[in-house]
Amino acid sequence: MKQITAGIIGGTGYTGVELLRLLARHPNAAPTCITARAQAGQPVGEVFPALRGVVDLQFTAPEESRLAQCDVVFSAAPNGVAMHHAEQLLQAGVKLIDLSADFRLEDARLWQQWYGEPHACPALLQQAVYGLPEINRERIRAAHLVANPGCYPTAVQLGYLPLIENRLIDTDHLIADVKSGVSGAGRKASLNTALGEAGDSFKAYSAPGHRHQPEIEQELGKLAGHPIGLVFIPHLLPIIRGIHATLYGRLRKSGTELAELWELYQRRFADEPFVDVLPQGAHPDTRSVRGSNVCRIALHQPGGGDTVVVLAVEDNLVKGAAGQAVQNMNLMFGLPETAGLDVVALVP
Amino acid sequence: MKQITAGIIGGTGYTGVELLRLLARHPNAAPTCITARAQAGQPVGEVFPALRGVVDLQFTAPEESRLAQCDVVFSAAPNGVAMHHAEQLLQAGVKLIDLSADFRLEDARLWQQWYGEPHACPALLQQAVYGLPEINRERIRAAHLVANPGCYPTAVQLGYLPLIENRLIDTDHLIADVKSGVSGAGRKASLNTALGEAGDSFKAYSAPGHRHQPEIEQELGKLAGHPIGLVFIPHLLPIIRGIHATLYGRLRKSGTELAELWELYQRRFADEPFVDVLPQGAHPDTRSVRGSNVCRIALHQPGGGDTVVVLAVEDNLVKGAAGQAVQNMNLMFGLPETAGLDVVALVP
Amino acid sequence: MKQITAGIIGGTGYTGVELLRLLARHPNAAPTCITARAQAGQPVGEVFPALRGVVDLQFTAPEESRLAQCDVVFSAAPNGVAMHHAEQLLQAGVKLIDLSADFRLEDARLWQQWYGEPHACPALLQQAVYGLPEINRERIRAAHLVANPGCYPTAVQLGYLPLIENRLIDTDHLIADVKSGVSGAGRKASLNTALGEAGDSFKAYSAPGHRHQPEIEQELGKLAGHPIGLVFIPHLLPIIRGIHATLYGRLRKSGTELAELWELYQRRFADEPFVDVLPQGAHPDTRSVRGSNVCRIALHQPGGGDTVVVLAVEDNLVKGAAGQAVQNMNLMFGLPETAGLDVVALVP
Amino acid sequence: MKQITAGIIGGTGYTGVELLRLLARHPNAAPTCITARAQAGQPVGEVFPALRGVVDLQFTAPEESRLAQCDVVFSAAPNGVAMHHAEQLLQAGVKLIDLSADFRLEDARLWQQWYGEPHACPALLQQAVYGLPEINRERIRAAHLVANPGCYPTAVQLGYLPLIENRLIDTDHLIADVKSGVSGAGRKASLNTALGEAGDSFKAYSAPGHRHQPEIEQELGKLAGHPIGLVFIPHLLPIIRGIHATLYGRLRKSGTELAELWELYQRRFADEPFVDVLPQGAHPDTRSVRGSNVCRIALHQPGGGDTVVVLAVEDNLVKGAAGQAVQNMNLMFGLPETAGLDVVALVP
Repeated sequence: MKQITAGIIGGTGYTGVELLRLLARHPNAAPTCITARAQAGQPVGEVFPALRGVVDLQFTAPEESRLAQCDVVFSAAPNGVAMHHAEQLLQAGVKLIDLSADFRLEDARLWQQWYGEPHACPALLQQAVYGLPEINRERIRAAHLVANPGCYPTAVQLGYLPLIENRLIDTDHLIADVKSGVSGAGRKASLNTALGEAGDSFKAYSAPGHRHQPEIEQELGKLAGHPIGLVFIPHLLPIIRGIHATLYGRLRKSGTELAELWELYQRRFADEPFVDVLPQGAHPDTRSVRGSNVCRIALHQPGGGDTVVVLAVEDNLVKGAAGQAVQNMNLMFGLPETAGLDVVALVP
Repeated sequence: MKQITAGIIGGTGYTGVELLRLLARHPNAAPTCITARAQAGQPVGEVFPALRGVVDLQFTAPEESRLAQCDVVFSAAPNGVAMHHAEQLLQAGVKLIDLSADFRLEDARLWQQWYGEPHACPALLQQAVYGLPEINRERIRAAHLVANPGCYPTAVQLGYLPLIENRLIDTDHLIADVKSGVSGAGRKASLNTALGEAGDSFKAYSAPGHRHQPEIEQELGKLAGHPIGLVFIPHLLPIIRGIHATLYGRLRKSGTELAELWELYQRRFADEPFVDVLPQGAHPDTRSVRGSNVCRIALHQPGGGDTVVVLAVEDNLVKGAAGQAVQNMNLMFGLPETAGLDVVALVP
Repeated sequence: MKQITAGIIGGTGYTGVELLRLLARHPNAAPTCITARAQAGQPVGEVFPALRGVVDLQFTAPEESRLAQCDVVFSAAPNGVAMHHAEQLLQAGVKLIDLSADFRLEDARLWQQWYGEPHACPALLQQAVYGLPEINRERIRAAHLVANPGCYPTAVQLGYLPLIENRLIDTDHLIADVKSGVSGAGRKASLNTALGEAGDSFKAYSAPGHRHQPEIEQELGKLAGHPIGLVFIPHLLPIIRGIHATLYGRLRKSGTELAELWELYQRRFADEPFVDVLPQGAHPDTRSVRGSNVCRIALHQPGGGDTVVVLAVEDNLVKGAAGQAVQNMNLMFGLPETAGLDVVALVP
Repeated sequence: MKQITAGIIGGTGYTGVELLRLLARHPNAAPTCITARAQAGQPVGEVFPALRGVVDLQFTAPEESRLAQCDVVFSAAPNGVAMHHAEQLLQAGVKLIDLSADFRLEDARLWQQWYGEPHACPALLQQAVYGLPEINRERIRAAHLVANPGCYPTAVQLGYLPLIENRLIDTDHLIADVKSGVSGAGRKASLNTALGEAGDSFKAYSAPGHRHQPEIEQELGKLAGHPIGLVFIPHLLPIIRGIHATLYGRLRKSGTELAELWELYQRRFADEPFVDVLPQGAHPDTRSVRGSNVCRIALHQPGGGDTVVVLAVEDNLVKGAAGQAVQNMNLMFGLPETAGLDVVALVP
C-alpha cells in the first residue's frame, strides 16, 4: 500500500512535534514536509533533540514547501492561520485537518466574536466536518476538511455524551470543572506558564468565559437537540500533559442508579477503540493516558444523590489534539482507525 | 507579658512541624514540649533540619511529657488520638486545640460512621467549639476545647459564607470541586502520594464520599438554618501546599449582578485579618498564600448567568491547619488575633 | 517466526511494568506470565490502568506460574531474589535476564559486603554476562544468564567509554556527579521519595558510598585494564524518569582538543543504535530520552582546559533497566537489536 | 530608632519582590520606593497578590522616583543598569547595594568580556566592596557601595572557604558541579524555563563557560593568595528556589581525616549566623533553606579517599540574593546582622 504523504503547517509548536512523533511511527503514513518560517533550513532534530534519528526532515518556509503535493496536511499553526490556506489546499486535492479553532464553529459571527477578527473563508465553515470520531465517524470518512476538536471540548463531550444522548440530565445547568496541563497553552515563552510562576501552584483562569465554551455548547447542543446551558471553568495544572474534566449533571429522573448509568456508558463506548470506561468506583489519573490516544472515563453518584459526576481524562496533545488528528486521517483514508495510535501510556 | 507555653502532641507530622515553624517566631508563645513516641530523645532539628537553630526541643514520649503543665496543647496527631487525651488535659486546666477530626462533628454516631470506631468522649463534643474564627470568634475566645476545622472545610465554608448567610443561592445543590496539594494527606510513606505516582499527574479521589463532607454539611447547615445538599469532589494536586476550592451556587434571584455579590463579600470580610477578597476579574493562585494564613477569594458569574462561582485558596497547612490553630490560640488567650501570623507568602 | 514467550518475576515494580509496556508492543515477543504474590489473581490492568487494553494477563503467585515454560524470564524483583531462581530456570532451558544486582559483581565477597547477605549461587557469577551491549555484544548473544546493568552504571560507563578505552584521561581520579529521578528508587511507599518530601527539592545521597560504585569500578577497571579510582556522588532529582551523569576526567595529554575527542565519540558510537552523540556545544536534557532506549551524550572542555566533561542522559527505566533488558533479549534470540525499541521519547 | 528608608530599582523581578517580602517585615527598615517603568502607577499588590496587605506601595517610573532621598537603594535590575545610577546615588549620600553583576568584578576589561559592553563607571569598581559577609564583614560595615554576590558564587565560596583558607586542597583543579532552580534565571517569559520545557527534566547549561565563573575565580583566588583553576558546570533543576553545590577538592595531604575537616568547618562558621554545618553523614536538601537566609553545608570523603566533597545548599533568592543584600544593609547601618532575617525555611 502506498504511504500517505503528510505535511504539517506550523511544526514547532507542541501539536506539531506531537504529530511528528506519531506520524514517524505510523505504518501507512509519513511526514514529508513541515513548515516553520523562523526555523527554515534547520533539521527537525536540532530543534527537537528527542526526534534525532526519528525524523530526518528540515523545516521549510511555508511558501517554499510542497504542501500542495501532500495527500494530507495538518495545520498545527495558531488560530487564524489555517483559514488562509484552506481553499488553496482543498482545490489542490489535499485533505486538510486543522488542529486550530478556525473551522470548529459553524457560525462565522460567533467565531469573530471570540477570535477577534472576521473569518477569512466563512463559506468553508459549512463544509468542515467536526472531527470527533465518536460522534461523527461516518461524516469524517467522507470529509476533505476536518476541524479537529479542541482539547477541553473533547474531554467534556466524551464525558457527557451518553448522558445527553439519552436525555438523562438537566442540560440547562451543566457544570464542567476542567483542569489542564501547561502544554495546552502551546510552546511559547510566556510568564504565565513559566516554571517559576505556574510550578507548585494551581489556579482557575478565564472564569468569565473561555474560547472553548461556544464550541462545547455548539456540539452538546446538537447532541441534546436544543441549546444547552453550561458553566465551564478551566484551571491550570502544574503538569505538562493531561486534562481532567470533572463534569456535573443533575439527573432528570429520581431513583436513577449508578449501575444503570455505568452500563449505559459501557454499551455506548464498547466499540470505541479510544474510550475506556473504568470499573465502578475508579478514579482515572491523567498519567494513565500520558502519551496515548485514550480517554478514560469514570462515573460517580456522590452519596447516592441526584447528581452524577463524570471524571474524564485525556492527554491534551494526543486525544485532545495530534492523536485525534491522526485518528481522523485514518478514517479519511480508509485505514484502520487505530493505525499508528497503539502507543502505550508512559507510566510512571 | 508572660509567654504562653505550648505543647504539641504528635509532632512529626506536617501540621506538627508547621506549628513549630509558627510558634517558634510567635511573640507571646513558645513551644515547650513536643511528643512523638518513635522519635523520643531526638532533637527536633535532627528530624527537621529546616528547624536547626530555630527550635531547640527534643521529642519526648507522650507519657514522659509535661503536656499537663502547658498553657495550651495542640493535638497534631492522627484522628482518634486527641479524644483519649482531652478530658485529662482539660481537667488539668490546659486549653486544648485539636487539629484532628475528633471534635469537629457534634453527633457521635455520625463520627463513628465516618471514622469507624466509637467516639471515646462523646460528652465533650457539645463543649467543643468549632474553631473557624470568621464565624465563631466570640465562642472561641471563651473556649477551653477548640475543634480546629479541616483544611477542605475551611476553604469551602469561607467561600460560601456570604452567599449562604444572605440566602442568595440554592443550598440544596451546592457543588464544591476542590483540589488539594499532597501535604494534606500527611507526612507518611504512602504509594498514593509518592512522587513517582502523584507527580506530573492529577486525579479525583473519594468521589463517592469523603470524611470532610459531614463536617462541611454540619457547619453550612447551621449557617443556612436548615440542612443543605452538597456534592463535594476532592482532587489530588501535584503540589506540596495549597487548596483551591471552586464552588458553584445557583442564584435564587434572577438578575443578581456580580458587582453586588462582590460588594457583599467585601463588606462581610472587611474586618477579617485573614480573608482577602480579590478585585473583580481576578483568579487567585495557591502560591499567593503559600506559607501564609490568608484565604484569598474571587467571585465570578460566567456568561452573566444564574450561577455564581467562588474561587477560594488557602495553604492547607496554615489557614487549613496550624495557622488557624494559632489564630484560635490567640483568641483564647486574649492576644492580638494576628500575633505570630504575619508571615508573608513565599512567592515564587 | 515464532513469538518468544517472556515471563516476568516481580511485576508490580517500575521495571516490571516498563517491561510490560515494551514487550506488549514487541513484534517478536509477548509477555505470557507475570508474578507478584500479593496481587495474584488480579488483572494487570487493575493495578496499572495505563495497561488496560494493552496487557490482558493476570498476576500469578510465583509457585503457580509457568516461568519454566517461557523462552526467557526477566527478573524485575528486588536484589536477592533472582539468585534463588536462577539455577532452576537455567536448568529448564530458560534464558534469564536479571534486572537486579544479583549477578552484576563477579566477586561474591564484594557482593556480600554491599548487599549484606551471602550470595546464594556464587558459581553462576562467572557464567553471567554483564549486559551492556555497547561493550559485550558478542558475549550477550551467546549468554544464557545476563546481568542487566544498573541505571547509574549504564550512564557512567557509556559516558566514559571512549575516553578510557583510548587511555585519554587519568583513571585514578574519575569524578561522576550523577542525578536520578525518583523512579530509580522503585515503586514503593517511602517517605524519602514522597512528593511532599522530594518534590520541589534536591539533594545528594549516599555520598560516603553507593551500591552501584563497585559495579562501575569493576567494569571501568576492565576497560582500563587496571583498577580505577572513582568518586561517585548520586543525587535525587524531583523528576520521575531520567538520569543525568556529569562526568569529569583530567586529560593525560595537554593540548588535546575537544574536536578530536568529539570525533572519537562519533566514531566509537557510529554503529550503536542507542547511543547518540550530540553536536558540539549541546547539552542533553533528560526529557529528550523520556520513555526511549537512547543514551544521549555531549562533550565539553570548559575554558579549553585540561578537564573534559561528559554529559550523558538516559531514561533510568529504559536504557537504564527494561529497555536494555529487551535489547539484551533481542541479542540473545538473534532478533534485530532494535526490535520493539523504536519508541520515540515523549516530549514535552 | 529611626526606620531606614529603602528604595528598590527594578522591582518586578524575583529579587525585587523578595526584597519586598523581607523588608516589609524588617524591624528597622521599610521599603519606601520601588521602580518599574512598565508598571508605573500600579499597586505592588496588583502585580504580586501575595503582597496584598503587606506592601502598600505603587511602582514608579525611575525618573519620578525619590531614590535619592532613600537611606539605601537596592538595585534589583538586570546587569548593566546599576552602573548608570551608581555615581548619582552615591553623591546624594545614598548607600547602594547592587544585586546585579555590575560591581562584582574588579577588572573592567574582564567585565566587558563577559557582559558584552564597556563598563559605565570603572572607577567605582575599586570602591565597591564584595558583599559576602563571611569574608568581608568589616569592609562591608564601612562600605557605601556593595556588590552583592551572585547566587552560584555564594554557595561555591562558602562551601570551599575553610578548605582554601587552610590550603588543604589542590586549588588548581577545583570542580564545582552546581544545580539551580529556575528562579535563578529571573522572572521573565522564556521558553527555556517554561514549565512545559524545564518541568520534569534536567540538564546542564553553559558548560563551556558561565558568567559567574570569573567572579568565583576572582574571590577564591584572593582566598588562596594566587590564581585558582576551576571547572564550573551549572545545571537547571526543575524546582523554583534553591541551589545545591557539589564541590570536589583533592586533599593535598594524604591521611587527612574527615573528622578533622568537619571540626575545621565547625570552628570556621561557629559565629556565622547564616552558615550551618550539618552533622557528619548528613546530606542537605534545598528545601531545608527554602525562603531562609541560611546556607547549610555537609562534608564527605567518599570511600575514605583523597577527595573531599562539600555539599552546600542555599535559597538562591535569599542567601543567594535578597537575603544577603539585607544582611549587608544590616551591617552597613550598624543593625544586628540578623535583623529581619529570622524567617524559618518553609518545609514541606
